[in-house]
Formats: sequence, structure tokens, C-alpha cells
Amino acid sequence: MAAATEGARKKAIIDTDPGIDDAMAIFVALRSPELEVLGLTTTFGNVHTALATRNALHLLEAVGRTDIPVAEGSHVTIKKAAKLRIASFVHGSDGLGNQDFPAPTTKPIDQTAAAFLVEQANLYPGQVTVVALGPLTNIALAIELDPTFPKKIGQIIILGGAYSVNGNVNPAAEANIFGDPDAADIVFTCGADILAVGLNVTHQVVLTDADREKLEQCDSKYARYLCKIMGVYFDYHKDAYFIKGVYLHDPTTVIAAINPSLMTYTEGVVRVQTVGITKGLTVFDNTKKRYGEITPWTGMPTVKVAVTVDAPAVVELMMQSLMTDD
Amino acid sequence: MAAATEGARKKAIIDTDPGIDDAMAIFVALRSPELEVLGLTTTFGNVHTALATRNALHLLEAVGRTDIPVAEGSHVTIKKAAKLRIASFVHGSDGLGNQDFPAPTTKPIDQTAAAFLVEQANLYPGQVTVVALGPLTNIALAIELDPTFPKKIGQIIILGGAYSVNGNVNPAAEANIFGDPDAADIVFTCGADILAVGLNVTHQVVLTDADREKLEQCDSKYARYLCKIMGVYFDYHKDAYFIKGVYLHDPTTVIAAINPSLMTYTEGVVRVQTVGITKGLTVFDNTKKRYGEITPWTGMPTVKVAVTVDAPAVVELMMQSLMTDD
Repeated sequence: MAAATEGARKKAIIDTDPGIDDAMAIFVALRSPELEVLGLTTTFGNVHTALATRNALHLLEAVGRTDIPVAEGSHVTIKKAAKLRIASFVHGSDGLGNQDFPAPTTKPIDQTAAAFLVEQANLYPGQVTVVALGPLTNIALAIELDPTFPKKIGQIIILGGAYSVNGNVNPAAEANIFGDPDAADIVFTCGADILAVGLNVTHQVVLTDADREKLEQCDSKYARYLCKIMGVYFDYHKDAYFIKGVYLHDPTTVIAAINPSLMTYTEGVVRVQTVGITKGLTVFDNTKKRYGEITPWTGMPTVKVAVTVDAPAVVELMMQSLMTDD
Repeated sequence: MAAATEGARKKAIIDTDPGIDDAMAIFVALRSPELEVLGLTTTFGNVHTALATRNALHLLEAVGRTDIPVAEGSHVTIKKAAKLRIASFVHGSDGLGNQDFPAPTTKPIDQTAAAFLVEQANLYPGQVTVVALGPLTNIALAIELDPTFPKKIGQIIILGGAYSVNGNVNPAAEANIFGDPDAADIVFTCGADILAVGLNVTHQVVLTDADREKLEQCDSKYARYLCKIMGVYFDYHKDAYFIKGVYLHDPTTVIAAINPSLMTYTEGVVRVQTVGITKGLTVFDNTKKRYGEITPWTGMPTVKVAVTVDAPAVVELMMQSLMTDD
């Protein structure tokens, strides 16, 4: 039984919208002796959900891990917004560097992402870590499906938000939260053990041109695959941020599950603005003030928010896990 | 002629909602050889506007400066919101430490605050500094009254906003911006020369218990008056912030007009959220990213936002100006 032989490994479900840095993150997770990947669930964000599912299946097939199930997630936001924001200009139209890979030979399981999340949380109460790399629609739907989900899930590690820094969609909002702010507010206030990793942290973790060259010179299947797709992601960063390198948003978040000691955290209530020009903005209450009035933050469950990161160690851990095949 | 003999002094209009720290700020302005106070305009915030007018007249009378005109401002927000937020729990029900001072013998001039602001800007184009210590309703009304006001006013120094820090009404919003967010967004994007002094700066400038004792031991009329009213302001800070001392929001802002070299600034676009749970939140674009999409910040006029402050020098300047009568 997997549970018996792999008792020491942390059970993880990756909710993902691949995505170039999603591909990196998924590979890091698959290579990690600390994690047992129970499945991938898919969402919109970097691509539409149908393409996210295709890409998730494709990525698993590309590295010979078709044993891992993929559950397709929601195609729309929790409030069924008229329009989705899809970041194809960051990852390519196919989400994987415009490589136009052939269709996967495998299929998603016959269960929605939300249903799979609830099932696994019930199967392994308190033991499953969800690593959420896209908008939080599926997690919010899991909470709607089973209100006890927040207490049954082990931890939800969220790549999402911009804490005391500007966003990446606009000065207010980070892309994953902006993608479904209503879902994000449900998740942040659901009472689960939550760790949010925001742009204030991930913008410190950069894969440089030199790192890319190192990857190009090595012969592992992971490095070979990633080097094929990374070009547009580097181009985007040069154009948008004027840097020679790429931010490791998704791999950093997976690594928060693998080695939590590489970050420090603060704890407090996070609420999400769902309307207006700052839609998708995350506001963390640092609890330095006793407000005289009841506020939308008052009495809500707290979450952990990452504050510092050992960036060189995160990059090194990622490089090491990708540069060999076993 | 005042203009001839006082040519070197900076002409200032103080838009104010007195308020204990407004009283400090007004006294500092009156005592400053660098400033020529053209008038006070009144607004709601710490108190309702009618009481702000009474208090402004009273403060000028208390220190023998009834030569300075007071123009009464708007009693409602620019969008005529159903409810005002009045911070009587910070400054006392009368706005001046629950001293229940007698009514002033003087009256406001027969002109609205907005009309007075426009008139003075036209009279001295490019020479008038508005020091805005309350919600920005009057300034927004001046812009509505005369669309050329932003180009005719010299500078608008705003006590308002919380830049990369929590607010003081709730974790998102600072009180003056929260008081009339629609007006604030009009002012921040009007194209005038604007300097915003936010909580990130004013929370560094504290009048301590020791400073208060020094003021109590001196015999100037300014110090005597302020020591009478400061008690509730100290009590509030102890209760809300767990500190022995008070934040010098308004005096710091006046001192930004008196000696701009005591602060450093950054420049960029500030927009104000006007609805939802983060209503009144100010978001500054640090321009580190070239956003792929048009955002509400794109192409808007920039403002200066204070970043650092020489706090000991600001406190010292205030103390020195209040501790003697001439």
C-alpha cells in the first residue's frame, strides 16, 4: 500500500494552470523525495482550463508519470464572471512556450477537481497539502461542496497575492487572486491552515541566464524539456520587468511544501477586494492596531503569509532536482 | 502690503477638521516664519464641518490671530454619502479634548471653502500651497468649480493614505481618504503638484510623554493651550496602538510645507479604491513593471509620496515653535 510504504512523504495535490513555471513546479514536486503527488487538478489562469488539463496530462506523460491522476477543474470563476483573464502573453498561446506539443494519450479522471480534493481530504484527513498555483476557484468549490473541507485538509499553500508590494496584473492585484477574487476571499477566510506565498516573496527568487545555461548543458529529461519551453518566459520578463531571468513563482510555492524552513512567515487575517479598480488586491492585517470599529477583518480566521525567503537555496534546490533523472 | 513685505514667505491655506493634532498643526503654521497663512478652510472628519468651523475660529481667537479668515467647507462628501465617519473617539466629542470651550466671537467669511481656494489660487497663481489635513472634499469641489485650479495652485500637501502599510480606520484605509474616497481619487489624479504624506511616514513621528512634560513646563500660550486638550489624544493612542505618545499626523504635514528637506519622496500614480471592503485604500504604482494591459493607473498624472522622514527633527521643529510666544 502506498500509504504504508510512503508514510513519511507529504501527500500533495497540485492545483495548476500549466504554464511554464507550473511545469517547473510539477517536475520539482515529482522529483522530490519529500512529496507524494496524489494528483493534479486543473484550473484557468495561464491558459483556459481545457488547455490546462491537456498540458497537465502532457507534462506527466513527457516524464513518464501517467500513474498520477489529473482531475479537471472549473472552466469559469465561482461567480461565473463574463470574462476570464488568460496570461497567454506570458507563457505562449499553448501555455508551454508555443511548442505545439502533440495531444496526450491519457485522459483526466471522471471526477471534478473539487470532488477529487474533497475525496482525498476525506481519505487522508489532516494529511493532504494542496499546492494552489492558479486562481482559487477549485478550492472554493471544494469548500462549497464540503464545508468541513477546511478542517480536513492538511494545509493549503497558495501562490497568490501581493503583500505591501505592487501586483503583476496592475499595481493593485496579483494574477492568481485577480483571476477569481471571490473564490480567493472564500479560501482566505475558510479557517484552513493556509500559507500564502506572494509576489513580495516570489520576486526575490530569480532563475538567471546563467542558471538557464547550466540547465541547457545537462542531459536530464526534466532539464531538456524545460529548456525547450522557457524562451518566451524569459522574453516576457525582459520586456515587462527589464530583467535577465525569470521569477520562480510556482516552483517557490512547491518548495514551501518540500522545505518550509526556507521561508519565514507572519500571521494575520487576509481579505480580498472583489470589485472596483483594486479588484484582486489582498490586504493583510498586521494586527498592530486595535481598531475602534468592526472591520471586514475583525474576527476572521488568520492565515500565514510568507515574508522572507532563502532565495539562493530555493533556486539551488530546484536546479538540483531537475538536473538528474534519478 | 502683506504681499510686498512678506514676499519670501510661502502662502498657505490649511484645510482642516480640528481636531487635536490639527490644533498643533495650525499653531505650528502660525508660528512659522516660512509660512504666510492666507486662511483656514474647514471640513468634516475629526468632527462635523459646523464644529470644525467653530473650532477653527476658536483656535485663531485663542492665540490672537482673528486676522486670518476662515471659510466653511462642505458638510457632505462629494457624492453626498448617506453617512459620514466622524472620529470623535480620537479627539473628544468637541474635537478639542472635551474642553467645551465658549463659542468664538468671530464668524466665517461669506464664501465657501472651495470658492476661497479658487479665488486665492487665481490671486496668486502658482504661489499658494494647500495643506490638506482632512478628507479632500473641498479640494475636489475647487477642481469642479474651476478645472484650471490644479494648474493654478502651487502645491497640495495631503495628509492622506497608507502606502504599503495598514490603514487606521481598518487594515486597508487611512481616515482622511476613507472620509471621502471619491474626492480623494479626483484630487490624486487632477494633475496638480501633489505631495502625499501617509501613515507610513506619520507613524514614525511620535510626541512622547517626555515631550508632553516639557510642553507642560513651559509658559507659552501655545503650549498651555495644547496641554489642556491633549489628554484624550494620548489616551486614544495608548488604547488603540499600545504606545505612550501620540502620532503627529497634521503637524508633520504642515512641516512638509515649512521644511521639505525633512522628508524624501518617490513619484508615481496613486489611485483610490472607492467601493467595497478596501474603500479608501490608496495604491501607489512604483513603475517597476511595464504592465501588458491598460490599467486604471496607466497615463494618469503622477504625485509625490513621502517615503522617509527625519522624525526627531520634525518633533524638535514643532516643540521649538510652540515653546515660546515670539
